[in-house]
Amino acid sequence: MKKKILVDMDGVLADVYRSMIEKEYLSKGKYVTAEDLNGLDEYEAFPNAREIIKSEKFFRNLSLMPDSIEGLKYLNEKYDVLIVSSATEFSGCINDKQNWLEEHFPFIKWQQMIFCGKKDSVMGDIMIDDHPKNLDYFKGEKIIFSQPHNIFKNKDGYRRVGGWNDIIKIL
Amino acid sequence: MKKKILVDMDGVLADVYRSMIEKEYLSKGKYVTAEDLNGLDEYEAFPNAREIIKSEKFFRNLSLMPDSIEGLKYLNEKYDVLIVSSATEFSGCINDKQNWLEEHFPFIKWQQMIFCGKKDSVMGDIMIDDHPKNLDYFKGEKIIFSQPHNIFKNKDGYRRVGGWNDIIKIL
Repeated sequence: MKKKILVDMDGVLADVYRSMIEKEYLSKGKYVTAEDLNGLDEYEAFPNAREIIKSEKFFRNLSLMPDSIEGLKYLNEKYDVLIVSSATEFSGCINDKQNWLEEHFPFIKWQQMIFCGKKDSVMGDIMIDDHPKNLDYFKGEKIIFSQPHNIFKNKDGYRRVGGWNDIIKIL
Repeated sequence: MKKKILVDMDGVLADVYRSMIEKEYLSKGKYVTAEDLNGLDEYEAFPNAREIIKSEKFFRNLSLMPDSIEGLKYLNEKYDVLIVSSATEFSGCINDKQNWLEEHFPFIKWQQMIFCGKKDSVMGDIMIDDHPKNLDYFKGEKIIFSQPHNIFKNKDGYRRVGGWNDIIKIL
């Protein structure tokens, strides 16, 4: 039987930081780099993050993380993949998230999607996520996907990947 | 620590059959009772079920199951409640499902919601569902909520409840 792997969307399949940086530039003319944001959580990095997230179609138009399509295709052949996304905090965004996933990853079936509030009730063998708060409660193998907010958060039991190329190498 | 209880939406909190019967009556002038439908699955009972489900705002306007508000309030005080709903098959309906839940059950927080394709990766101690396909894979206590499609499907290990009054009595 294939191992079950839980894959996060925001910060793993979707390059939320890139989209945030673009929104920030368009609204304030201020261009920040991902490096400027190292060690800051999303709300420190973008004080108006909540407004940006709630803006029309934010989740429908997110940038793709580099190599995520090839990477997820690879995992989907080798593992039992479940996409597990935190999605209920900002009411009204889930349709956009599902449509985005269907557009960019049409090989992922509806049976493989979970949109939730907290991830601590979802079982699997391996979890790829950028948020320690999700990985901490997971019972299986924990893989942290590097993002500016987690760059200094190394813990025992996490394997860190810098991007999808790393995932393909180790899984 | 409170026990974790997974509660289904359609056929448990939402009276989908009642809404289907009303739609059928409005479109075909044909009035069926829930008894006429005993033993038939949803697609046998309503040959145009897919069209009804996909119709504008179907999930936003579903009828409430009798006593579901009081029943869920009771469970929410005594247990760690998670609402787990199959919601990804018909793309574009999840926002309506979430808004419906927020309107009728405002005491349920966003952290307590899971919208998924399959429920077999969600952990808990007790599951209340009307579909044997969901209960079968569950490792904890299985409670089947009577609906016309499941009325003759009794299995060892299921406790059957006829409605929310029964749930309050046994849990």
